Amino acid sequence: MRVGLDVGGTKTDAVAVDAAGTITGRVRLATGWGPDGVVQTVVDAVEALVAAGVERGGIQSVGVGMPGQVHPGSSHVLHAVNLGIADLDLAAATAPRLGVPVSVENDVKAAALGADALRGGAGGTMAFLNLGTGVAAGIVSDGTLWTGAHGTAGEVGHIAVDPHGPICTCGQRGCVEALSGGAAIARRWGRPAPLPVLDMLDAADRADPHAQALRADLMIGVSAAVRILVLTADVDVVVIGGGLSGLGDRLMDGVRAELEASAAASEFMRSLHLPGRVQLLPAGSPAAALGAALVGAARERDTRETVFHG
Amino acid sequence: MRVGLDVGGTKTDAVAVDAAGTITGRVRLATGWGPDGVVQTVVDAVEALVAAGVERGGIQSVGVGMPGQVHPGSSHVLHAVNLGIADLDLAAATAPRLGVPVSVENDVKAAALGADALRGGAGGTMAFLNLGTGVAAGIVSDGTLWTGAHGTAGEVGHIAVDPHGPICTCGQRGCVEALSGGAAIARRWGRPAPLPVLDMLDAADRADPHAQALRADLMIGVSAAVRILVLTADVDVVVIGGGLSGLGDRLMDGVRAELEASAAASEFMRSLHLPGRVQLLPAGSPAAALGAALVGAARERDTRETVFHG
Repeated sequence: MRVGLDVGGTKTDAVAVDAAGTITGRVRLATGWGPDGVVQTVVDAVEALVAAGVERGGIQSVGVGMPGQVHPGSSHVLHAVNLGIADLDLAAATAPRLGVPVSVENDVKAAALGADALRGGAGGTMAFLNLGTGVAAGIVSDGTLWTGAHGTAGEVGHIAVDPHGPICTCGQRGCVEALSGGAAIARRWGRPAPLPVLDMLDAADRADPHAQALRADLMIGVSAAVRILVLTADVDVVVIGGGLSGLGDRLMDGVRAELEASAAASEFMRSLHLPGRVQLLPAGSPAAALGAALVGAARERDTRETVFHG
Repeated sequence: MRVGLDVGGTKTDAVAVDAAGTITGRVRLATGWGPDGVVQTVVDAVEALVAAGVERGGIQSVGVGMPGQVHPGSSHVLHAVNLGIADLDLAAATAPRLGVPVSVENDVKAAALGADALRGGAGGTMAFLNLGTGVAAGIVSDGTLWTGAHGTAGEVGHIAVDPHGPICTCGQRGCVEALSGGAAIARRWGRPAPLPVLDMLDAADRADPHAQALRADLMIGVSAAVRILVLTADVDVVVIGGGLSGLGDRLMDGVRAELEASAAASEFMRSLHLPGRVQLLPAGSPAAALGAALVGAARERDTRETVFHG
């Protein structure tokens, strides 16, 4: 039994996964604040799974997906500002209390692994494009996460695709995230609303010109990210998840229309059949928690192999 | 002994590589036209290596790098227009005459493998960015080529990075190739010259405003490709080769200056240290031919394993 956690800014999702990859238990709880709060959340989440019927002695590993930067192979979480964490070795802080190996991965990377598993382990090469507060992607090939050299693989959100586009929080102009990130859209929309992107889309439907421009930018940015992922990594499928994926068809129809419009004059782009290669992560899928469980299982296996062969 | 060929539009480069990866023989000859001409060139190139002292009986495989589309795992070359080839199974046409297995790879992908080997097999993740008539890249991770799902991995030349940029031959606007490809620059420069890109750079040095704009575009496009490769695949190093790499420091100084200027306002981009991660393939390096020899060796090994285990 592997446990996977998705530690988000407000909620933590926890799943238990059996050897066949089936989710056998799932709980949600509020996320604590700061290093101590997050460590306690991890311990509490495992306890909550046990209370929900997962056998404590059967847990072999805990994998944690977290916002922020996690260097490949390390369990240090850096710059998880939404959780009040500057630098935390999460495995060192929680493994002694849990009594099992703990591994950590960036939440988008974990969700990429989980989204791939949720496709039934179809194999091949896929990307998970997370449209949330920010925009980032993870690339999975034959069930393995593409880690890259320095932990920036999949950072398509900060690729500039319009020299005259809006300024991004990263300092560049016309980044994918400046066009399509939830925080950037909310900032540019400027009207107070509980769900600013939805408010903007509703206004665009009422022919508000500012909203229509922002809606167009949203679709242009997502389409650019899809093209970049297909033309750089040649992924077969781009699965879209994250908070904005809750927009469902309103997002997907717009993205597919933009992909078609931008390919209209290009036989080469049309030959890629991009509109058919974009998929939405089913609502409520615990992709990041499931992926975190898989990261935990893989890391434990690597460690065992090192011990046996090294 | 492995033989590798780089079949270019005018010349074919051929190398023999021993088991340690050392180049032990090298010849160049003119490339023939059309399917028959290219098949004859492949046979002639191997004969020329033998004439130059390579032992015929010691040749275990021949790998061929070719322009055009080569589907992963196939030996069909499609759309190699500069060679007059629409569709050719090069292995079927040459292996019976050569008496050894023949494998085929796109020339830029082969050059990526070769450029990685020329770095001393440093491992890690690198990209080879080919700046020639067109622009394309190959990505190598731990000595293995990233093939992707449909053979379009590394096609960064047709990622649009400026919605107001020049029209690309692919039909899109503002592609990397429309800014930085040799053919696109020659077309936009419009002045007859044996080396139009060099002529344009010389005119830019004399403060010709049209040339200065084209020079700026060249550097902007290459910088965009570097950012895309680093932020999508997280390659450690981008090695620049192809015809335009002959511009040497005039190219590299401009690219590094543009990478620095575009990162000036972005702490995130500065943290990536991109100017230091761009390298020039040493002039005259037989990267594509060497890589083709490595492709041949790898394919032969795969086939043997299939026979033994399958």
